[in-house]
Amino acid sequence: MPYRTLALKDKIVLITGASSGIGRAAAQQFAEVGAKLILVARRDERLQALKRELEEEHKVEAHTVAIDLQDLQKVSALVPELPDSFRDVDVLVNNAGLALGKAPVHKNDISDVATMLDTNCKSLVLLTQKVSEGMVKRNGGHIINVSSIAAHEHYAGGSVYCGTKAFVSAFTNAMRHDLVGTNIRVTAISPGAVQTEFSNVRFKGNDQAAHSVYAGIIPLTADDIADQIVYAATRPSHVQVGEIISYATYQASPTNMARVLLQK
Amino acid sequence: MPYRTLALKDKIVLITGASSGIGRAAAQQFAEVGAKLILVARRDERLQALKRELEEEHKVEAHTVAIDLQDLQKVSALVPELPDSFRDVDVLVNNAGLALGKAPVHKNDISDVATMLDTNCKSLVLLTQKVSEGMVKRNGGHIINVSSIAAHEHYAGGSVYCGTKAFVSAFTNAMRHDLVGTNIRVTAISPGAVQTEFSNVRFKGNDQAAHSVYAGIIPLTADDIADQIVYAATRPSHVQVGEIISYATYQASPTNMARVLLQK
Amino acid sequence: MPYRTLALKDKIVLITGASSGIGRAAAQQFAEVGAKLILVARRDERLQALKRELEEEHKVEAHTVAIDLQDLQKVSALVPELPDSFRDVDVLVNNAGLALGKAPVHKNDISDVATMLDTNCKSLVLLTQKVSEGMVKRNGGHIINVSSIAAHEHYAGGSVYCGTKAFVSAFTNAMRHDLVGTNIRVTAISPGAVQTEFSNVRFKGNDQAAHSVYAGIIPLTADDIADQIVYAATRPSHVQVGEIISYATYQASPTNMARVLLQK
Amino acid sequence: MPYRTLALKDKIVLITGASSGIGRAAAQQFAEVGAKLILVARRDERLQALKRELEEEHKVEAHTVAIDLQDLQKVSALVPELPDSFRDVDVLVNNAGLALGKAPVHKNDISDVATMLDTNCKSLVLLTQKVSEGMVKRNGGHIINVSSIAAHEHYAGGSVYCGTKAFVSAFTNAMRHDLVGTNIRVTAISPGAVQTEFSNVRFKGNDQAAHSVYAGIIPLTADDIADQIVYAATRPSHVQVGEIISYATYQASPTNMARVLLQK
Ligand SMILES: NC(=O)c1ccc[n+]([C@@H]2O[C@H](COP(=O)([O-])OP(=O)(O)OC[C@H]3O[C@@H](n4cnc5c(N)ncnc54)[C@H](OP(=O)(O)O)[C@@H]3O)[C@@H](O)[C@H]2O)c1
Ligand SMILES: NC(=O)c1ccc[n+]([C@@H]2O[C@H](COP(=O)([O-])OP(=O)(O)OC[C@H]3O[C@@H](n4cnc5c(N)ncnc54)[C@H](OP(=O)(O)O)[C@@H]3O)[C@@H](O)[C@H]2O)c1
Ligand SMILES: NC(=O)c1ccc[n+]([C@@H]2O[C@H](COP(=O)([O-])OP(=O)(O)OC[C@H]3O[C@@H](n4cnc5c(N)ncnc54)[C@H](OP(=O)(O)O)[C@@H]3O)[C@@H](O)[C@H]2O)c1
Ligand SMILES: NC(=O)c1ccc[n+]([C@@H]2O[C@H](COP(=O)([O-])OP(=O)(O)OC[C@H]3O[C@@H](n4cnc5c(N)ncnc54)[C@H](OP(=O)(O)O)[C@@H]3O)[C@@H](O)[C@H]2O)c1
Repeated sequence: MPYRTLALKDKIVLITGASSGIGRAAAQQFAEVGAKLILVARRDERLQALKRELEEEHKVEAHTVAIDLQDLQKVSALVPELPDSFRDVDVLVNNAGLALGKAPVHKNDISDVATMLDTNCKSLVLLTQKVSEGMVKRNGGHIINVSSIAAHEHYAGGSVYCGTKAFVSAFTNAMRHDLVGTNIRVTAISPGAVQTEFSNVRFKGNDQAAHSVYAGIIPLTADDIADQIVYAATRPSHVQVGEIISYATYQASPTNMARVLLQK
Repeated sequence: MPYRTLALKDKIVLITGASSGIGRAAAQQFAEVGAKLILVARRDERLQALKRELEEEHKVEAHTVAIDLQDLQKVSALVPELPDSFRDVDVLVNNAGLALGKAPVHKNDISDVATMLDTNCKSLVLLTQKVSEGMVKRNGGHIINVSSIAAHEHYAGGSVYCGTKAFVSAFTNAMRHDLVGTNIRVTAISPGAVQTEFSNVRFKGNDQAAHSVYAGIIPLTADDIADQIVYAATRPSHVQVGEIISYATYQASPTNMARVLLQK
Repeated sequence: MPYRTLALKDKIVLITGASSGIGRAAAQQFAEVGAKLILVARRDERLQALKRELEEEHKVEAHTVAIDLQDLQKVSALVPELPDSFRDVDVLVNNAGLALGKAPVHKNDISDVATMLDTNCKSLVLLTQKVSEGMVKRNGGHIINVSSIAAHEHYAGGSVYCGTKAFVSAFTNAMRHDLVGTNIRVTAISPGAVQTEFSNVRFKGNDQAAHSVYAGIIPLTADDIADQIVYAATRPSHVQVGEIISYATYQASPTNMARVLLQK
Repeated sequence: MPYRTLALKDKIVLITGASSGIGRAAAQQFAEVGAKLILVARRDERLQALKRELEEEHKVEAHTVAIDLQDLQKVSALVPELPDSFRDVDVLVNNAGLALGKAPVHKNDISDVATMLDTNCKSLVLLTQKVSEGMVKRNGGHIINVSSIAAHEHYAGGSVYCGTKAFVSAFTNAMRHDLVGTNIRVTAISPGAVQTEFSNVRFKGNDQAAHSVYAGIIPLTADDIADQIVYAATRPSHVQVGEIISYATYQASPTNMARVLLQK
């Protein structure tokens, strides 16, 4: 008798950072199992295209919200302004986030610092507050925060990014204590090297630098991490996946990659 | 296009502690996907019964090894004495383990201490050495160590058990660095409260004490954790699940359980 | 032959949050060993009074900077606007910080969230950048960040505060990697329950709530933590204290206090 | 008014591994502040010489116990067989310990594995049990366990050593919960690279390999760590130093050393 998982058909899944990478792949995989999607990111055209794809290929409903998550007023307004049929979010995937640069601590650029803290932490806390309010009322839901191995292993050039992801992991754990008497589940997803636009963003368009991050290894893909997110969300309701930490097979830490394919 | 997972058909999976709980459930779930099983534990009759079940229900081959893992000579001999068709282990699940008692540090019973250290740590290191030797030669394989949330969150009455599981988690991480240039993957599975014989063993037959561990919550089941083990093992070969930490939904730490069902 | 420590006579020590609690006590203890002090906080009258005290009692020079550290322009200007004789900071103590409230995650107040993130994280990163720039040029210095046990153990009602302190600890570790080739040392100080204005601030003037945090235990004092900061700073130059974690003796975690004195 | 520390005059301090390195230096520094010493290790002649030195130079009493800590019967007998005037141990320093080899996991030598687990973990648990029994009766004492940065950061070639030190750190934390209602304090000391006989032991007499561990850095010395141990022990009785993590200044992790002095 096969293991019974949780059906997500018609469940409402809100994903931030749905225009690219992990968030986009997660939207597709949630659509595959029949969920209704709320897609949040800045790049509207991408969200529209994804919405069409999900509606056509998977026959699910999707709703887009094109905002900059650094704009806290827009984040505050997000839930109240959802269409009625999308308001009661079942699964919140706090995925939007970024690293900017690899500066050592004495060269940190304060505008990059602010962008990372505001996107990875501040807006995540606010959106979580707004969405979990309803979950507590309905006594159910799942909050999935995309953290990183950088939360746990701290490296040169990553002082602020590591800090923001350590924030996310600590926040996730504390939240589990806040919500322990409820049917709400709380999960952190902490990947290693995933090939998405992440490194292009980090290296600000220096695509060669971005590319070299993954040289000689077989990196994780956005789909691999989306699969983990959907895995956590589809476990039976009494199972609370706390954290999934993953690496590329040729990787043992943020800085220890065996560039096996280059050596050949 | 659904996510492509790794087929385990005819793969050889060695599971310690297969006579009960998580290990037994893992054997069943691996059999379900067609793997050949090596079942290790002390209680031979249970292993025999499980072997018959797997062969009949899932039409897979199974081999039993009834040994006490504290006997290091028997652990050393385990791999060489496997039948040829079972020798090249693809997946090693180091699952056998136990806690004994809840004594505070000034009342630790040294014979319990020795049993925990020998079973949870020493034999695990030895079996891993023996099995990984072949994996390195074949440049492939997966080592899955069952750790615990007790590795990360340390509680009164758990000094030695927490210590042994912290050992397992650290050992797992260091091993990932040892093997980073290979196709071998390394995973820790770190569950919260799972209802198995674990608490009966811990409380040495005081079944009321054992039972009360899970009072008022919906505990994780052996099947829930087996599902995580099989999940890790069936990810594509470039994906290395590093650790899956899980809790019961009504649990936030080893000691923070919301006994929701009692309150009603 | 007694252990040789590092003399701080005439060394320049910049302390944020010097108007109260740990920062104030640290200023006094650094003055005791002859250091010159830069005192930073919002409450100018307190800084002035402390400056007079240090100058009179310990015959050291002190300079005050009354700013709100949330004002990033003022933080940026802080170092360049220091008097010449105070500009080359030898020891930076990033101590200013706070928790606001004990709200669960679904009731987090976004203005409190912003205050915590801006004070505990953003301004700390900026000031560190500005001060470490000079340290790197001079190839020497010590950066001491006041974190908390909340960085490592996450509790209900502390989601954002725990997050900010996890940020500080991760940031500190990553920074150590950035600066590893230099003579600059990097330290985190992570205290448990210290009786200062911290809880009065957290509970926004509800002094009874603040008081009850320490009921029945003998809490750490500001002086106890100042002593740890000065300890780290006075170790020989080749010794890099990475982190000092401390608890009150009747405390085992943020939430596990044995209220021994109440029971009598 | 200088910070008040705890006087250790005539206090009884038991140190394991007192014949070399950190333990020997700790004995000397505790003697300097007037403590009575119980010196435990295998090499009797070294203990005798140290005893004479402490008695002559510092006019303190010392008692030696030359045993192999792997012999659990001798560990059990240690406390009952102490002379009356040494029986009520005030400070226990569990320092004896070792790493053996740098083998990857598939080459671990089981006899080395057993030696590390028995010395670093099993005997430490047993001695702690025996000594803390008395401390609980007397409602006072201090247990200081020498762990390592290897408890927290896990590296290739260190699978078992890292595991044993993770055990020590977890055990220490859990013990703090066991003893939270008492006046007993619990501390872990977690150093980075300390130049002692440690690497000579690890590399089994290959002194060149041992030497090269510290090449180009200024390593920590046994005295530096002894100083931390005495620091923890001399804090006021309400202050519980939980852990001191330290690195050489030219070190950022077990494997990240800037070999600055070689480059010149
Ligand atoms: N890739 C990795 O190696 C890796 C590893 C560990 C963790 N992660 C984490 O995974 C998450 C997703 O990253 P990814 O790898 O998928 O990178 P990605 O391809 O760059 O995607 C990032 C997503 O975040 C959105 N986003 C960024 N800033 C935003 C803002 N201010 N407002 C709204 N949306 C914003 C982007 O959308 P718009 O630009 O359209 O707004 C985009 O959809 C991040 O939290 C990242 O830190 C990534
Ligand atoms: N249950 C929980 O809440 C929980 C939570 C976190 C982690 N874990 C871990 O999960 C693992 C499996 O435990 P479980 O919950 O499934 O408990 P369980 O039902 O008691 O199963 C333990 C298994 O280990 C085997 N075993 C124990 N000592 C052995 C020895 N000396 N030689 C050979 N086999 C031995 C037992 O077989 P025989 O008695 O037949 O030898 C049995 O098959 C353990 O490592 C445990 O620490 C459990
Ligand atoms: N007390 C504890 O139990 C405890 C435990 C662990 C860690 N900590 C940490 O220890 C550090 C010091 O706290 P404390 O216990 O000494 O508390 P405190 O007595 O409240 O002192 C906090 C200090 O920070 C300053 N500060 C706060 N916000 C500021 C701002 N925006 N700009 C400039 N200065 C600001 C305050 O000065 P003004 O108000 O005059 O600006 C004050 O000098 C904090 O980082 C805290 O998180 C405390
Ligand atoms: N050195 C480092 O870089 C470093 C870093 C982090 C942590 N540590 C830890 O620091 C502690 C002390 O090491 P160390 O650096 O001072 O090394 P060391 O100079 O080799 O000293 C080790 C001490 O342990 C004793 N010992 C070892 N096995 C013993 C046994 N079976 N029975 C009784 N005593 C035994 C030795 O005495 P006999 O040989 O006379 O018995 C010796 O006194 C260890 O726990 C080590 O793991 C060291």
